[in-house]
Amino acid sequence: MRRVVEFDGQRVIVQQEAAPKPNPDEVLIQLRLAGICSTDLALMRGYKDFHGMLGHEFVGEVISGPDTWLGQRVVGEINIGCGVCDMCQRGLKSHCRQRRALGIFNYDGAFGDVFRLPVANLHRVPDSVSDRQAVFVEPLAAAAQILQQIHIQPQQRVVVIGLGRLGLLVVQVLAHTTAEVTGVVRHERQVALLRQWGINASRVEDVPLAQADVVVDCTGDVEGFHTALALVRPRGTLVLKSTYEGLSAVELTKVAVNEITVVGSRCGPFPVAIRLLAHSRIDVESMIDGVYLLEEASQALTHAGQSGTLKILLKP
Amino acid sequence: MRRVVEFDGQRVIVQQEAAPKPNPDEVLIQLRLAGICSTDLALMRGYKDFHGMLGHEFVGEVISGPDTWLGQRVVGEINIGCGVCDMCQRGLKSHCRQRRALGIFNYDGAFGDVFRLPVANLHRVPDSVSDRQAVFVEPLAAAAQILQQIHIQPQQRVVVIGLGRLGLLVVQVLAHTTAEVTGVVRHERQVALLRQWGINASRVEDVPLAQADVVVDCTGDVEGFHTALALVRPRGTLVLKSTYEGLSAVELTKVAVNEITVVGSRCGPFPVAIRLLAHSRIDVESMIDGVYLLEEASQALTHAGQSGTLKILLKP
Repeated sequence: MRRVVEFDGQRVIVQQEAAPKPNPDEVLIQLRLAGICSTDLALMRGYKDFHGMLGHEFVGEVISGPDTWLGQRVVGEINIGCGVCDMCQRGLKSHCRQRRALGIFNYDGAFGDVFRLPVANLHRVPDSVSDRQAVFVEPLAAAAQILQQIHIQPQQRVVVIGLGRLGLLVVQVLAHTTAEVTGVVRHERQVALLRQWGINASRVEDVPLAQADVVVDCTGDVEGFHTALALVRPRGTLVLKSTYEGLSAVELTKVAVNEITVVGSRCGPFPVAIRLLAHSRIDVESMIDGVYLLEEASQALTHAGQSGTLKILLKP
Repeated sequence: MRRVVEFDGQRVIVQQEAAPKPNPDEVLIQLRLAGICSTDLALMRGYKDFHGMLGHEFVGEVISGPDTWLGQRVVGEINIGCGVCDMCQRGLKSHCRQRRALGIFNYDGAFGDVFRLPVANLHRVPDSVSDRQAVFVEPLAAAAQILQQIHIQPQQRVVVIGLGRLGLLVVQVLAHTTAEVTGVVRHERQVALLRQWGINASRVEDVPLAQADVVVDCTGDVEGFHTALALVRPRGTLVLKSTYEGLSAVELTKVAVNEITVVGSRCGPFPVAIRLLAHSRIDVESMIDGVYLLEEASQALTHAGQSGTLKILLKP
C-alpha cells in the first residue's frame, strides 16, 4: 500500500492504494521530499483537465529496480518519451509525440510515499546536495534551459518579470551570465532576496521602455507578456518561461515590426541544475516557505496558492 | 510642380503641388516605376492613421543632389534614421527610435513624379536589372531578411503560407537554401507559379501537422498565424513576415510548451535583392498584373486590392 495525493477534478484527497508495479524499464522510488509548483496549482484550476496523482518535483530513493540504482538518492526528469518517434530519435524526449509527463498527464505523479519512473529519467544526487536543495533541481533545470536556447552576452541588459517560484531561480541563473540583470519586483520580500543575491531590483515603472536586450516573462499572465513586449528593444529577445491560460490577445504586429524574437522555453538540463546546487551557486533555502506532511497536502496546496508564497514542500 | 498620389483618410487623390525642396542630405528623384504593396492597402484601411503621400517601392533617377548620384538609376531603403540614437549607432537604422518611413509615416512617399529621399538610403541599380525588376528590390530585400535572421539548413522542411505579393518572393528566396520548401497554395495561379519555379505546392490540409522545421507566415491574418503554429514542429521556428490588424488571440502556451521560436521580420538588405535580380535568380516578371499611370492611382489601388492580384505598378 502507498499514500498518494490525488486531485479528483474538484479537490485534493490523500488516500491509500496498492503500491504500483513498475514496468521493466521503471524503478520504484520512495519519496524523500517533493515540491509544489505553479503547474500543480494550474492543474487544480482545470489545466489539461487533470485528474489523478499530482507532483513532479521530487527527490527520493530507489527502492526497487536495477542493482546500479538500488539505494541511490535520485531526482527525475518529468517527460516520459516513447523512444521511437522522430522527436525521441533526435534526442528531444521532452517533445516526444506521445509524451507523458510525471504528474501532469498520462503518468502518475510524485506526491506519494512510493511512485514509479523510468530508469532513463533518473539522475543521481551527489552527497554535496541536500534534499532541500535537490527538490529544486527540476525547476532550476527549467531556468537553466534559457541558457541552452539563447546566448546572453555580458554587455546585454536582461530583465526578468514574474519573480515567483520559477522567476527567482531564473534571475539567479541569468545573473551568472555576467550580463546586467534586473529583476522586476512588486513585494518587499523580492527586493530583499535580490539584495541578498546581489542582483538589481526595480519596480516595473522604473525600467526603461524598449531598452532590454532580453526579457524573460515568468508571470504566466498575458499582462506580463504585454509588459515584456514593452520592455524589450527592437531586435531583442523575449523568453516565454511560463504557460498562459487560454488564448492571449497579443500585439503580433509589434513582434514583426520590431523584429522581436520570442522564444518558448520549458524543461531543461538536470546535470546543470545539480552542478549549480552542488557548488552553492544558487540559493534555494531562502525560497522555502513551509514543509508539510503528505497527509496535509490540501493545506500545503492552499498555502502554495496564496499570493507571495514561494516554495512549499511535502514530505512522507 | 509635381503630381502626387495622396490618401486623405477617405480616398486617394492625385494632385499637383509644389516640387519638394530637398534637405542637404537628400536628393530629388524622378520616378520611373513604383509598386503597390499590401502595406499601402493597409494604410488606406486605417493602419497608422495615415494621411498623405503614399508609396515606398520604387525605381527612379536622381535629378538633384551630389554629383556622384546625379543621373543615377536608384532604388531606396524606406527607413529614415536620425543617425544619433542608440539603434542608429548600432547600425540598426530600420529600428531608429525616431524612425520615419517613406510613404508610411512622417515622410512623403514615392507615388509622385518627383520625390525626395536621403542620400544614405540610395542604392544604384546596375544595367543588368530592368526597371520592372528593380521595383521589386524593396519587397525582395524584405524576403531575404529571413536568411539574415535564421539559419535554414538543407535537410530542413520549410513551409511558406500566404503566397501573395510578398509570400511569392519569400518562397523563391527560401528555395535557394536547398531546404525542402513547400508553398501553401489556395489558387490555381499559385500552383502554376510554383510549378514554373520548381517549388513544391501543397493545399494546407495536405501539409502534415507539427512537422515543419520552419514556417513563414506571410498571410497578415491571425488565422494564418494559427495555421503556422499548427504546422511548425516542437523546437521549430515561426517567422512573422507580415503585420496583423489589432490584437491577435494567440496560443502563447503552445509557443512555450513546444519551445517554438517566433521571429519577427521586416525590412532587409537591398544589395542582396539587387544581386539576386541581376543574376535572374528570382522571377518577378510573372508577378506583374498591371501598369497604371499615376493619374490612374485610384483604379490601380482598387485593382491591387482585389483578391488574388499580385503586383500592380505605377508609372509617371
